[in-house]
Amino acid sequence: MNEPLRQFEPVVTTPFSGIDVGDDLKLSVRREGQARQTVTVGQAVFGARRVVMIGGPCAGEDRESLEITAAAVAAGGATMLRGGVFKPRTSPYSFQGLGSAGLQLLADARARTGLPVVTEVIDPRDVALVAATADMLQIGSRSVQNVPLLREAGASGKPVLLKRGMMTTVREWLGAAEYILAAGGNDLVLCERGIRTFEAATRNTLDLGSVAVVKEITHLPVIVDPSHAAGDARLVTALSRAAIAVGADGLLIEVHHQPDTARSDAAQSLNCAQFDDLVTACRAVARAVGRDL
Amino acid sequence: MNEPLRQFEPVVTTPFSGIDVGDDLKLSVRREGQARQTVTVGQAVFGARRVVMIGGPCAGEDRESLEITAAAVAAGGATMLRGGVFKPRTSPYSFQGLGSAGLQLLADARARTGLPVVTEVIDPRDVALVAATADMLQIGSRSVQNVPLLREAGASGKPVLLKRGMMTTVREWLGAAEYILAAGGNDLVLCERGIRTFEAATRNTLDLGSVAVVKEITHLPVIVDPSHAAGDARLVTALSRAAIAVGADGLLIEVHHQPDTARSDAAQSLNCAQFDDLVTACRAVARAVGRDL
Amino acid sequence: MNEPLRQFEPVVTTPFSGIDVGDDLKLSVRREGQARQTVTVGQAVFGARRVVMIGGPCAGEDRESLEITAAAVAAGGATMLRGGVFKPRTSPYSFQGLGSAGLQLLADARARTGLPVVTEVIDPRDVALVAATADMLQIGSRSVQNVPLLREAGASGKPVLLKRGMMTTVREWLGAAEYILAAGGNDLVLCERGIRTFEAATRNTLDLGSVAVVKEITHLPVIVDPSHAAGDARLVTALSRAAIAVGADGLLIEVHHQPDTARSDAAQSLNCAQFDDLVTACRAVARAVGRDL
Amino acid sequence: MNEPLRQFEPVVTTPFSGIDVGDDLKLSVRREGQARQTVTVGQAVFGARRVVMIGGPCAGEDRESLEITAAAVAAGGATMLRGGVFKPRTSPYSFQGLGSAGLQLLADARARTGLPVVTEVIDPRDVALVAATADMLQIGSRSVQNVPLLREAGASGKPVLLKRGMMTTVREWLGAAEYILAAGGNDLVLCERGIRTFEAATRNTLDLGSVAVVKEITHLPVIVDPSHAAGDARLVTALSRAAIAVGADGLLIEVHHQPDTARSDAAQSLNCAQFDDLVTACRAVARAVGRDL
Repeated sequence: MNEPLRQFEPVVTTPFSGIDVGDDLKLSVRREGQARQTVTVGQAVFGARRVVMIGGPCAGEDRESLEITAAAVAAGGATMLRGGVFKPRTSPYSFQGLGSAGLQLLADARARTGLPVVTEVIDPRDVALVAATADMLQIGSRSVQNVPLLREAGASGKPVLLKRGMMTTVREWLGAAEYILAAGGNDLVLCERGIRTFEAATRNTLDLGSVAVVKEITHLPVIVDPSHAAGDARLVTALSRAAIAVGADGLLIEVHHQPDTARSDAAQSLNCAQFDDLVTACRAVARAVGRDL
Repeated sequence: MNEPLRQFEPVVTTPFSGIDVGDDLKLSVRREGQARQTVTVGQAVFGARRVVMIGGPCAGEDRESLEITAAAVAAGGATMLRGGVFKPRTSPYSFQGLGSAGLQLLADARARTGLPVVTEVIDPRDVALVAATADMLQIGSRSVQNVPLLREAGASGKPVLLKRGMMTTVREWLGAAEYILAAGGNDLVLCERGIRTFEAATRNTLDLGSVAVVKEITHLPVIVDPSHAAGDARLVTALSRAAIAVGADGLLIEVHHQPDTARSDAAQSLNCAQFDDLVTACRAVARAVGRDL
Repeated sequence: MNEPLRQFEPVVTTPFSGIDVGDDLKLSVRREGQARQTVTVGQAVFGARRVVMIGGPCAGEDRESLEITAAAVAAGGATMLRGGVFKPRTSPYSFQGLGSAGLQLLADARARTGLPVVTEVIDPRDVALVAATADMLQIGSRSVQNVPLLREAGASGKPVLLKRGMMTTVREWLGAAEYILAAGGNDLVLCERGIRTFEAATRNTLDLGSVAVVKEITHLPVIVDPSHAAGDARLVTALSRAAIAVGADGLLIEVHHQPDTARSDAAQSLNCAQFDDLVTACRAVARAVGRDL
Repeated sequence: MNEPLRQFEPVVTTPFSGIDVGDDLKLSVRREGQARQTVTVGQAVFGARRVVMIGGPCAGEDRESLEITAAAVAAGGATMLRGGVFKPRTSPYSFQGLGSAGLQLLADARARTGLPVVTEVIDPRDVALVAATADMLQIGSRSVQNVPLLREAGASGKPVLLKRGMMTTVREWLGAAEYILAAGGNDLVLCERGIRTFEAATRNTLDLGSVAVVKEITHLPVIVDPSHAAGDARLVTALSRAAIAVGADGLLIEVHHQPDTARSDAAQSLNCAQFDDLVTACRAVARAVGRDL
């Protein structure tokens, strides 16, 4: 029942190291004569000329905070709103998110701003619940090899944003993509967010080489989350520009109207004015590589 | 609802680097005046003088193969049988295990050999199903941060074997342990199985230093899986001896009666005669460190 | 005798993780009121508006090959020529470079093209020899913690290009820079070239976050070598654009007039036409970030 | 001139991943019919039945301190004395060792205790100087790919202790060994000392799997330095036992008569009583694996 449904000839004949095109990867690989895919979520079109800008807080915390931030990112040029309500934390004693109550806050923020919303789901039993509100389901880095969750997300009928695990190879990441595609989830977007290495000056090491590899091999749109990789707001704009220059189809940026008070990831969140500046800084690079923003 | 239920004074006052004893880790840390815990699963007692030896195939494949291997490991000195029936594979096109049909094979092998069985569960919705047959639930390395699964396993009433993720820190591993303990799962055993590094001569890098750290900090039994770390049968006995010497409370060894025909992990499986030799080789080391086998 | 000669107040008051500004790093840190440094090597000025483009073969192999490649990179827009003559190889049975005979080839190529040359030195006893010909000394990734070599290079009076080790932290890299600066080598340029991680799809993982960190902390110019990081010519242009977008002051690109015949690093070398295309592709990004090329 | 002098048939016909036996590795690989090599340095014989125990301070600091520690490790069962006099430090502002003055202290400690001494050399120009006093030359982890130093050490006529770099693969480590062997340095001993990984609970990750691989492939003695890997005295005895159990031919242990006052590596140094206990604890394991101590 896990057999692939379609056959094709891949474009990539000299695969990259350790990546078995055509064996492990049957559906995600770019095929002869096939264009890159676009994935449409409301006004956001991943893989088109315009780079998609997603902004919002790491975690939705309360109505007022989310509304202020949502309004600001919409004004600043974002075309999608992010906000976590189910948070997978290292310790059970850390804030775990608002849960289903948070979904209503996201829906209200969408109603006010017109921005489609993407939020993470971590439990296969919650996929239907989250899909009833969210415009796009996010599979987070800790869940990238959670096979039951991948299958449910793929079968949900909703677009899916699949983050790379901080510990997964490109091959494994694309293997996870295959689970979603094989379950029927055609509207799939990948997201590089930094990998775990020995280097401690940044929170994770943003692997833009992997973005180039994935663009070379697959037909899927790929975006970049520089906020989690950097772990420090001072680095986010420079890494965002680099991401667009390497070919990313979008950015996922943590924004909080008062970063110092955020309940998680305060150090890396931009405030609203910094987000505006980031968009302007990135627009020039987008145009230099034949895109827009 | 995620608040800890018990308060205590930890023994460890100079914590190891990056490990927040008493904040992230409230239940797993060893407390003043507290002995190390033992976890009893049938004839296997983790944390007691006798080192627990768990043997069996990576994946249960068919009745005959499992029965031959189970009989051999029982005769060779194993006190628990392992066998995967739900396999989390990198690609959806790889063998995914026999699923619930495999549980019956494990039950039959237990009936013949008297060995309790441990098997992996990867979906929170399958916890009750697997717990109805297995004597111990295994949380695999890919699931170590699957919070809903950790909670279900902890609440199941069954002993749990929690593998370290191939790229989780000791702190994160113990954070996962906290989810199980906080959900009521007191019978918890940890398992080091190698971490992902730049070194390619072995499949993963067995991190015996982490075993020493965890024994120093926590009250929990810790075992070692040298087979997955080594990725090569030629290294398994030497690493098993090292694991016992560092203080491991048990070993998890892949054994297959015909490794060349195994559907997964063939290179690292011992055959039955090699397993016998391993037990003999390890027994001498166990006695040298005040244990038995 | 290793005490610093100058005192200053650093600009960076909230240092990045694990980096001890003012203790380990006394001379490289950017000081209050101080501009970023420029380093001039012939027509190449590192740290100025124009991004420095260095091209050439991994190893100088013979006169004809070097001359063809040198002429091509000069025509394509390079302002400096690279070429290795002392090669630190993993195995003693691999080609070790032409040695001092190769220095003459570099001098001849400089005479024909007008390009200043940079080449690696691996032995402190060879620093004077190499400095007699080369316009800039390269300290390679394997030598980044070779203290006697760092001191000799710093005392040579020549500009130095210090590559990051493939497994040194930013802190260690800047510590190596301090050895050069403390020995009097003020004309110092840093070069990020990829770090060693678990990912195998690229040869190394280009760490552009470290470039952003180093630009934030220090006054030193920083360039990027995408060729060694990528290990595959298909990725070099995309990574070059990203490097310029993140703020790099230059690029170090492997070019070979016939990559298929190169005696080392064939897979990642661009041919001359590809180099021309890379320069054009990068120029647009350079202008988008207020630079030129 | 770098061509191998001898031809042979290797024993290992199914090499380990990424290790090119017979191409990169010509002299270090174990040959058909060949016994493992022993390396004799005074009373210490590496590769024989008796596990070699090397103790001493990270850095020789002053006469009194070295004498007290040397006498204590001799009494405790060490058969060789270690002590660093040329220290490769991350920052030029850290203590760099006593230099040549320290060599005299080592010679005096040898005269009093009868223990042969091993000390690190970091500059190829110092090899003759160090070889005039030391009984064995240590190539440290930062120097493992310092080709000129490897060649000088190999040609010195002295036994060489080659530490694995914290960032080198087994293949690269054995490549470094080849440089020494090809230069004539037949009396070569390897030393695993932990590799750099994402894990921060220990200073480095002791890679005992690599010891098993190297014992399988080569004829060379291999010892283990658990002190630098652990970075914490509480872990050293457990890791020492594991090292002997995996097959190590010796241990290199940091001992300081007053660890709290040590100028480097205080956290991981044992005091003299702890060293005595370690020897006793290790002796039992040595006997269990057919060795002695």
